[in-house]
Formats: sequence, C-alpha cells, structure tokens
Amino acid sequence: MMAADRDAGAPLFQLEAWAGSRLSQVESALERWVTADASPGASHAAPAALVEAMRYAVLDGGKRLRPLLVLAAHEAVVADSRQGAEAALRAACAVELIHAYSLVHDDMPCMDNDVLRRGKPTVHVRFGEASALLAGDALQALAFELLTPDGEAVPALQQARLCSLLARAAGSAGMAGGQAIDLASVGHTLSEAELREMHLLKTGALLQGSVLMGAHCGTPDARALAALQDYGAAVGLAFQVVDDILDVIADSSTLGKTAGKDADNDKPTYVSLMGLERSQAYAQELLTLAQQALQRSGLANTLALAALADMVVNRAH
Amino acid sequence: MMAADRDAGAPLFQLEAWAGSRLSQVESALERWVTADASPGASHAAPAALVEAMRYAVLDGGKRLRPLLVLAAHEAVVADSRQGAEAALRAACAVELIHAYSLVHDDMPCMDNDVLRRGKPTVHVRFGEASALLAGDALQALAFELLTPDGEAVPALQQARLCSLLARAAGSAGMAGGQAIDLASVGHTLSEAELREMHLLKTGALLQGSVLMGAHCGTPDARALAALQDYGAAVGLAFQVVDDILDVIADSSTLGKTAGKDADNDKPTYVSLMGLERSQAYAQELLTLAQQALQRSGLANTLALAALADMVVNRAH
Repeated sequence: MMAADRDAGAPLFQLEAWAGSRLSQVESALERWVTADASPGASHAAPAALVEAMRYAVLDGGKRLRPLLVLAAHEAVVADSRQGAEAALRAACAVELIHAYSLVHDDMPCMDNDVLRRGKPTVHVRFGEASALLAGDALQALAFELLTPDGEAVPALQQARLCSLLARAAGSAGMAGGQAIDLASVGHTLSEAELREMHLLKTGALLQGSVLMGAHCGTPDARALAALQDYGAAVGLAFQVVDDILDVIADSSTLGKTAGKDADNDKPTYVSLMGLERSQAYAQELLTLAQQALQRSGLANTLALAALADMVVNRAH
Repeated sequence: MMAADRDAGAPLFQLEAWAGSRLSQVESALERWVTADASPGASHAAPAALVEAMRYAVLDGGKRLRPLLVLAAHEAVVADSRQGAEAALRAACAVELIHAYSLVHDDMPCMDNDVLRRGKPTVHVRFGEASALLAGDALQALAFELLTPDGEAVPALQQARLCSLLARAAGSAGMAGGQAIDLASVGHTLSEAELREMHLLKTGALLQGSVLMGAHCGTPDARALAALQDYGAAVGLAFQVVDDILDVIADSSTLGKTAGKDADNDKPTYVSLMGLERSQAYAQELLTLAQQALQRSGLANTLALAALADMVVNRAH
C-alpha cells in the first residue's frame, strides 16, 4: 500500500501516520467551522435544524481524500509547512464541503435515489428532501466563506486564487458539468473518450482542484505547477476507474454504500466499456503517470502525494 | 414612483432611464458569461444541456433588482463610475446568479413545487428535476467564478471581499438559512420577531449583500458603509413585506407567478400576522428608514439608491 514500495531506495513513508495527524486537524477544523456561528462577524446565526443537516453530511465520515491532497500538495511546495498553513487547512475543509454537498444532492431521489451513504441513511432520508437540498446549497456557500476569512491570516491574493480554483472545479465546466453528462448518459453507449471526459469533470476536476489549491497555498514555480496539474489529472481519473472496479467487485458493507448500482442503473463505466482486467491495468498506468509527474515536478517533498496516488489506485473501498 | 418626489428641491431622477442603461449592460454581461465557455482558461467546456438550463433560469426574466442595487451602491461611493466598474458589473451578475439559483431550487417539488415563474414553466418542469438541481448548483459556483477573473481587471483584495460578502449572504446565516426557517415554519405561528428574522435572512441578506458588494467596488468610509448597511437592511425587509402584500392583492398574471400561494400553503406572512393595512404602513416606514440612512451616509450621489427603495415599496408586481 505504501508508495515507498515503488522505490526501495527511498525512505519508507508512513502514509497512515502522516494522514492521521492531518486528518485530526481537518476533522477538528470542520467540527469548528460547520456550526451555527461560523462567521464571527455575522449578524445572524444559522438555524439549528439546517446546521444539523449540514453537520450530518460532513462530519464523521468519508476518506477525506480531497483534504489530504490539498495538504500534501501544500507541504510539497513550501519549505516550512507553517507557511500558508491556515490557507491550506481552510482549502482542505472547503474542498471537503463541496464534495459533501455534491454527495447530498447526488443521493436525492431525483438523482441517484440512494438511501445509504458511508453506512448511514442519506441526508434526505434522515432530514427530508427539502432540508437536504438546502443543506447542500448552504455547504457550497460555506466552502467559499471558509476561503475568505476576515483579517490577515490568509492574504487576499491567496483568497481570490483559492475561490477561483474552487469555483471552476465545482461548476459547470467541472464537477456539476460532469454530473450533468453522467445524468444524460444513462442508457446510452459512450465511447471511451466520452467516458473519460465525463469523469475528468465529475470527479477529476475537484481532485485536481484540490491539488492545485494546496499548491497555491505556497508559491510553486511553473514547472512544479504543470507537474502537479498532470498528477492531479491522473489521480482524478484513476479514482473513478477504481470506483467503477470496486462497484463491481466489492460488496455494500465494504463500500459503505449500495454496490452494483451502476450496472443496475445501466450507467456506462470503465468496467462495462473495457472489461475488468483492462480497467485494472489502466488504473495502474494512471498511477505510473501520476508518479512520473511528481518526479518531473522538481519538488523535494512529494512522498505524501505519491503515497496518496498509490492509495487511490490500490484501495479496497 | 420617483424618489425625487420625496424632496421637491432635489433634481428629478429618472429611474427608468438610469435602470435601462444599467440593465442593458447586465443583460449582455449575463448573456456573455452564462455560456459553455465562461472561463477562458478552462480546460473543459460545460455540457450544452446544463448550460441551456442555466441560461433558461437566468436570461430574459426578472426585475434584476439585486444587480441594480449593486450598481447604484457602486455609483454612490465612487467619484468616477469607471472606477471599479468591472468589479461592479461582475458583482451585479453574481448576485443575480445566486438569486436565480435560489428560485430554481425553491420551485422544485420538494420545496414550493411551483410550475410557473416569470410567466414561464419553471426549470424543473422544463428540464426535469435532476437538471434543475444541477443547474442551480452550477449557477452558485458560477457566481464565485465571475467574482474571481484572471488578470488585473479586479484587484485581488476586491475579489476576496466580494466572495466573502456573497458567500455569507447566500449561506446558512443568510439566504439558505432563511429558506430553512421558512420551510420549518409552515403551519406554525411565528411571532413578528421570528417572521422578521426569517425574512432578514431569506430575502434581506442577499439584498443587503448586493448593496454592500456594490459599495466595496469603491472605497467607502465607515460612516457611508454603516449607512448603506442600514439602507440595505430596510430595503431587504421592505421587499418581503411588499411581497407578502402583493401575494394577497395581485393576481397571477400581474405577478408572473402563482398568487395566493402563501395562504394556500399556510405560510406565515406579514399580512397574516399584522393585517393588510398595518403591513402597508410598515412598508412605508421601512422606506422612510432607508431614505434616512441615505441622508446620513454623507454620500453625494444616492438618487438611484433612493429611487430603488421607492420602487421596491411602491411596485405593483
């Protein structure tokens, strides 16, 4: 599982230990920021029922892959990880809020109509459809709120850049666009190129956006930025290929969500298009592309990014 | 209808002419920016079907009150209206996108289940529920995209400030929060204070946010900013009081949406709480408060803001 396996000469990188300490920061930040009084300067408190649904959607669940990509990319580009740390933590939470809102809306009856997520009833099952709709909407707004704190903790230039990257990753030429293609594709035959385009938007844009947001919490040079962009694209696509594989080979209790749904819904997937074996080989190719991108980045500290790419491809759920 | 009526000594302000020229700018900017290739730097185009639903939701409809408030506030705080003009136009479009997305989601079956909006079938009737959900989500993201253009046209400090104001106005302690209170209030008796709080969030936050965003496209002093905040709060509340009045006294063809829905849905309104006459008097009081705020702002050029407040209170639809 460890990326260090790929190179016996590299020092062993302990992904679990690295991720554990970052995740405890992220979890406590989300706990602190997804509350009724998120903005110190706000003149009104958020209603408790709405905040409860938002917290249910966000807290205590998920692999937090996107926040880890933000933090790993940030650590890769700065000499001292305290530099830009507040921006990186906020960016890590913001991408997770966008991810969480997309799951809430995606699970709704008019979309995937899923009742199980992370082993728990989905938000609309627990709180009703209208509350799920509003909680998702409010989570998207909160993501941008987290990126634009008052005071000096995050320079304005960084705030603006992070909002720009997140808005583009989440929007019609990113995640929401990919979901729209997905929606339109049910029951249709897609070419591999079309399937790739769909996933590059639907999942890839936010994963790549996470990497770029983390990088922009430092001041990477053009070579590093281009390499991280390629890394993010490869990891984003690999994530979806592996998701399609797991939907076929894993069971619901391992996944924490309903397995086999894609086939039931007659959705095109990598497995339906290229078969299981070729999909698995493709995932490994994408992992190689991601690792090659890191090698040409010129960055010294890419072990966490490498380990995360490895984890994405070789995960069991 | 003209605000100049309130003061026979002031020069006559032609709101229609002023608004007409601003609206043609806003309409053509929305036409340009709500497209498949909104971001020049984007690596992917948005899918055409999604963009079609987004354009249907935004273009060719609505009073554009929020954009006009942005532009009027901007013109009030700058000596030369070319100063900060790009930021103001982007802010004007961004608040309209947030407003448009909220209408799309609000009309959905799980919320108000409305089939008519601005005299046309609502987005979910026309495009289906899933597309309406995604179009709303993508419009929210696009609002933040518009506020964070590449290049030098809008300084980073302004981009960050505008994103911050918009996120807070749209989120759980703003518009989405107000909608959640509204949802929870159906069939319940609210006190006047509770009804006021609901509307301050649901409609007031974005109207006030529009005024503040416009102001932050210049560099207002503290006194002007405080006065504009009060003006925005009064206009925001007045808007909702008048909405409640019109829901009772106007018919659907005048409103362009289904009239009498609040009473049918057993929703608390100002009219149900304080009666028609007291509601009308309250709207006039709020207009006076708005005009007084402008007088103490110390700003020279507040005629458009004054006329917009007057229009909000004395409109027929």
